[in-house]
Amino acid sequence: MTATSTPKMYVPKLAELGFTFGGREPVLELRPGEVLSLYTEDCFGGAVKTIDDLPTRVCQMPYLNPVTGPFYIEDAEPGDTLAVHFLDISPARDWGVSSTFPHFGALTSTHATATLQPPLDERVWRYPIDVAADTVTFQASHSDFAVNLPLAPMHGTVGVAPAGFQAISTITSDVHGGNLDTPELRVGATLYLPVFVHGAFLALGDGHARQGQGEASGVAVETAMHTTITVDVIKGVSTPTPRLETNDGLLSIGCARPLEDAFRISQHDLVHWVAELTDLDLLDAYQLVAQAGTAPVGNVCDPNYTMLARIPKALLAEPAYGGVHERLRAIPWKTPEAGAR
Amino acid sequence: MTATSTPKMYVPKLAELGFTFGGREPVLELRPGEVLSLYTEDCFGGAVKTIDDLPTRVCQMPYLNPVTGPFYIEDAEPGDTLAVHFLDISPARDWGVSSTFPHFGALTSTHATATLQPPLDERVWRYPIDVAADTVTFQASHSDFAVNLPLAPMHGTVGVAPAGFQAISTITSDVHGGNLDTPELRVGATLYLPVFVHGAFLALGDGHARQGQGEASGVAVETAMHTTITVDVIKGVSTPTPRLETNDGLLSIGCARPLEDAFRISQHDLVHWVAELTDLDLLDAYQLVAQAGTAPVGNVCDPNYTMLARIPKALLAEPAYGGVHERLRAIPWKTPEAGAR
Amino acid sequence: MTATSTPKMYVPKLAELGFTFGGREPVLELRPGEVLSLYTEDCFGGAVKTIDDLPTRVCQMPYLNPVTGPFYIEDAEPGDTLAVHFLDISPARDWGVSSTFPHFGALTSTHATATLQPPLDERVWRYPIDVAADTVTFQASHSDFAVNLPLAPMHGTVGVAPAGFQAISTITSDVHGGNLDTPELRVGATLYLPVFVHGAFLALGDGHARQGQGEASGVAVETAMHTTITVDVIKGVSTPTPRLETNDGLLSIGCARPLEDAFRISQHDLVHWVAELTDLDLLDAYQLVAQAGTAPVGNVCDPNYTMLARIPKALLAEPAYGGVHERLRAIPWKTPEAGAR
Amino acid sequence: MTATSTPKMYVPKLAELGFTFGGREPVLELRPGEVLSLYTEDCFGGAVKTIDDLPTRVCQMPYLNPVTGPFYIEDAEPGDTLAVHFLDISPARDWGVSSTFPHFGALTSTHATATLQPPLDERVWRYPIDVAADTVTFQASHSDFAVNLPLAPMHGTVGVAPAGFQAISTITSDVHGGNLDTPELRVGATLYLPVFVHGAFLALGDGHARQGQGEASGVAVETAMHTTITVDVIKGVSTPTPRLETNDGLLSIGCARPLEDAFRISQHDLVHWVAELTDLDLLDAYQLVAQAGTAPVGNVCDPNYTMLARIPKALLAEPAYGGVHERLRAIPWKTPEAGAR
Repeated sequence: MTATSTPKMYVPKLAELGFTFGGREPVLELRPGEVLSLYTEDCFGGAVKTIDDLPTRVCQMPYLNPVTGPFYIEDAEPGDTLAVHFLDISPARDWGVSSTFPHFGALTSTHATATLQPPLDERVWRYPIDVAADTVTFQASHSDFAVNLPLAPMHGTVGVAPAGFQAISTITSDVHGGNLDTPELRVGATLYLPVFVHGAFLALGDGHARQGQGEASGVAVETAMHTTITVDVIKGVSTPTPRLETNDGLLSIGCARPLEDAFRISQHDLVHWVAELTDLDLLDAYQLVAQAGTAPVGNVCDPNYTMLARIPKALLAEPAYGGVHERLRAIPWKTPEAGAR
Repeated sequence: MTATSTPKMYVPKLAELGFTFGGREPVLELRPGEVLSLYTEDCFGGAVKTIDDLPTRVCQMPYLNPVTGPFYIEDAEPGDTLAVHFLDISPARDWGVSSTFPHFGALTSTHATATLQPPLDERVWRYPIDVAADTVTFQASHSDFAVNLPLAPMHGTVGVAPAGFQAISTITSDVHGGNLDTPELRVGATLYLPVFVHGAFLALGDGHARQGQGEASGVAVETAMHTTITVDVIKGVSTPTPRLETNDGLLSIGCARPLEDAFRISQHDLVHWVAELTDLDLLDAYQLVAQAGTAPVGNVCDPNYTMLARIPKALLAEPAYGGVHERLRAIPWKTPEAGAR
Repeated sequence: MTATSTPKMYVPKLAELGFTFGGREPVLELRPGEVLSLYTEDCFGGAVKTIDDLPTRVCQMPYLNPVTGPFYIEDAEPGDTLAVHFLDISPARDWGVSSTFPHFGALTSTHATATLQPPLDERVWRYPIDVAADTVTFQASHSDFAVNLPLAPMHGTVGVAPAGFQAISTITSDVHGGNLDTPELRVGATLYLPVFVHGAFLALGDGHARQGQGEASGVAVETAMHTTITVDVIKGVSTPTPRLETNDGLLSIGCARPLEDAFRISQHDLVHWVAELTDLDLLDAYQLVAQAGTAPVGNVCDPNYTMLARIPKALLAEPAYGGVHERLRAIPWKTPEAGAR
Repeated sequence: MTATSTPKMYVPKLAELGFTFGGREPVLELRPGEVLSLYTEDCFGGAVKTIDDLPTRVCQMPYLNPVTGPFYIEDAEPGDTLAVHFLDISPARDWGVSSTFPHFGALTSTHATATLQPPLDERVWRYPIDVAADTVTFQASHSDFAVNLPLAPMHGTVGVAPAGFQAISTITSDVHGGNLDTPELRVGATLYLPVFVHGAFLALGDGHARQGQGEASGVAVETAMHTTITVDVIKGVSTPTPRLETNDGLLSIGCARPLEDAFRISQHDLVHWVAELTDLDLLDAYQLVAQAGTAPVGNVCDPNYTMLARIPKALLAEPAYGGVHERLRAIPWKTPEAGAR
């Protein structure tokens, strides 16, 4: 893996897009250490192009939030951990869209938080994306107000086939990953997922040009992505809930309702992870996480909410998973068009 | 269907038991109006026979909460409603079992309500079932205390294949039914479920000799059942969430976390159902349900909790679903061994 | 106390009504065993008389949900338990009112479950009360639909001064009682409350001609009441959360959000109570409550929701609190106008 | 106010500490623009000095979380907004303490999330505070592990007298402020609180040398503080929920359970606040907050959890509250001992 490699390429046809984790056959095989460049459609399947394309008119359930994959990961077996490192996430369009969606989002009644009130108006916002300037532009729909926001590309949805013969909608998240919808899942991060089936069956999609914490309106700045990943398999090591590693932090992700349970899962996992990496007993690790940790909010709108618990790596003695994050980020690669990165 | 009919019979082999709704092929076809007698295994697959058979030792994930089926229902198409009427639910054994289960139940921390505390002790209780006396007997494990409780057979788990190509664990419940775990699902009740796939793919299991409201310990008095059902299809009428009809009440079932959302879903659906059957406007129906309704708790332990909203039928002008409940309960049938019922 | 006694009488002047538990001086002293007849205003202070009296127009915060009292209970000291037995609850008017109230209730967004949707329309319903026929009559506001419902008088709000120098709004409930809003608090019931201050400072109000489980619309059939109570003090016995005793059941009340915490508190307390009255160990008591218990819903609309956990007394060996319920219900009394009851 | 002023000083005697917001008489008057230096005791009243001082042994309910005050703010009337600007927050000791506390914290069952499990062990940690080095030091209790964390002084508890004649424990938070327990409440921040009574009755305490987001263990690094504040009154402008302003951001604070309601309240308020400061319509403001906002977690352990919704001020056209934050931070002052700051 020392030689700079040109990634494998995968661009799905429309019929190859998936709407569940599990229940589908792999579209490609990937070896640990291989680099893969792929294309992901936005959460509307690309059907919302203008502010007149209301999602409920141009989209149809259950054809929302398509994922690219699944990819069969060689050597991945139940009980292992899959590490997915994001080498690049680049918008495939110079625009993204967001919207309100009837009875979806944090500041509206929903299917579950059911009230007798009519839904909020359905409305679409179109965001110009300027990669050179590193901005996305918010333009108000009912006034001249406009403002640039930092471009911050990320994937909302990354997961593997779940346990127990299940096939779970890409709209939700759980221990298999899925619709995590956290801005922390960006370039440079390594996502750790438990493996439940031979080959793991990794799939991803739901690119966001940016997203606020909580994704309060239910929809981020949605866009198609050109994304490059590499993977590794940590044999015989299981992972209880999705985890992230960045260059300076470790994060555990909790997926649940109510929100305090997502918080509890994330903190509980981080306490155990820190205990393991520091040889602290559980109450000492709890104390350290409680004083030194942060709790970045993922989403508060999907079927399962997500909360993250984060600790700075500088506080810990040992690297996580034997240092796989450092190895994966060092893999040399180049885009087919461009030179090595 | 006026002549008394001997039911079709179906007793599953071990390998035919299912652990998901969706993702499996039908084991039998059933026509509307036909009567089917079937056998269901208990939630432990019959593996817990004595107080020494701790579930975590004798059972293995995901082989918990098996269902019998799925049954392909003729004429059932997406958008229809399936009516399942329970003609008989009889314990197939003269004993049932209950247990605590590590980190499962309402009065323990769980996977989601994650704490750093060790789990409660795992313990099994064995309940003698006396069909003639109509009792199940609680016997304390750490003292001589014993007391008879009324036998009240029911099914915890009844559902159809879910929407969106999903296959969902039989441990959870949602709009497709599933692990509803409500004592209201007993003999004489008609369960209404939305149809998402051609043939509906009905499956059921998880018989309880009795269950308290809330199933606080996470496990009811579990036993195998001989159960007789008949079904009907209400064409072109969709049902937003599972519903029950008894001889004197209508009930909507909400499946969600947190518990107030299960409550909201159930009340919201009942308000709309009452509005439809009385021609009341929505606020009038809300007012009537709020003053005249009850809210029987289903379970507060499964991945989705269940709450029911109930209104007496005597308050309403019209029968639900055109009177299908009355038609189904009048279907004459006899057990193979016995005479007509 | 063997001689039939004429109750003490207390009818508050408007300025004597209270809007907090704690923070106010007693209006009357009461000895254990004494009988007190009192008057309570409805939750609107009587200001909503017709369907044109919208609460937000005729009422003013914080002058909602007035209570009568507080009554100084002789011998009641911190650490004791106060038993309040309801000898009579009779509507003081031949009508009651209910309403929607902006952003209040279970099927609307609220101050806490905040959404961007406008509130539901504010509307008032007036219910004729017929004591002789034992009915309250629902009359739809937007159609001719009308139906009689059973009269079932109860008090929504009964409590004592809370701990820690607090004065808490009568809109909420907690361990001191308060706005419990459960239909189980009716004639014949004994309510057990912990005592936090010398004299306990009992107060009550918020009469309902009837209420559905959950009080989904946020407002019951509200009316003024003539109510007769008697009290006792159980010395040196503390009570962790409000409890009820009826002729055939024991009930623990949990006050909290989210609703599953109200459920947990109620079940947790009942498990401990049953363990104490049966000498069962905690897991045996948990098992018995889980299989034999019911979980009547109180309210799912107030600042704290309420859930009750109930067990039939027939299953238990010993009487609760040494049999105080039986003693209090046997106290002979007569109304001033009428003869002995 | 252009001349540098020496602050008023207030150091409470033990008997002057308060344990409620509301229900107490003012200890001092303060004019808008005046500077006040005061002393606050830690949440244990200073009783936990070593790792052997277990809180349940050395503290007594309800004498926890004492506040200094209340201060009568001249000109503050119901309907106004009180602005409290923190000029200085300096540890009054060279050590702080933290602890577990039985059935309190996010990763344990609690009084409300009641389970049958025993509590976690009670344990105390003592943190050396080095103001010169800007550190607090975590020392594990069961190993040699030690690590420096950034010193980040803040106040957990700041509030005014609540509405409706209430007196509310300093342990909880709500629209009157109180036990907000957010690390955002630090030097340089301006806290906006609604005024409910003449004089506002401001009180504060519960200094933390630092706190992680969520305060997962239930207790931060608690220490006494020397704190300097100044205040202003915004006449005729009400504030619906506590708000913060820093040099670069606006934050709304939601206090509620479950956690998603705290999130909803904070986001709902920020959307309305942004709409007001930008002339955006509500859905445009919702969209902007959803994409550009962050959601810093306060606490997930107190009776009410807190979540904050934050927007960068750079995105907004107008200053909040007419620029009061800029005016207050510019007020010159000096400590009695030291020179002007």
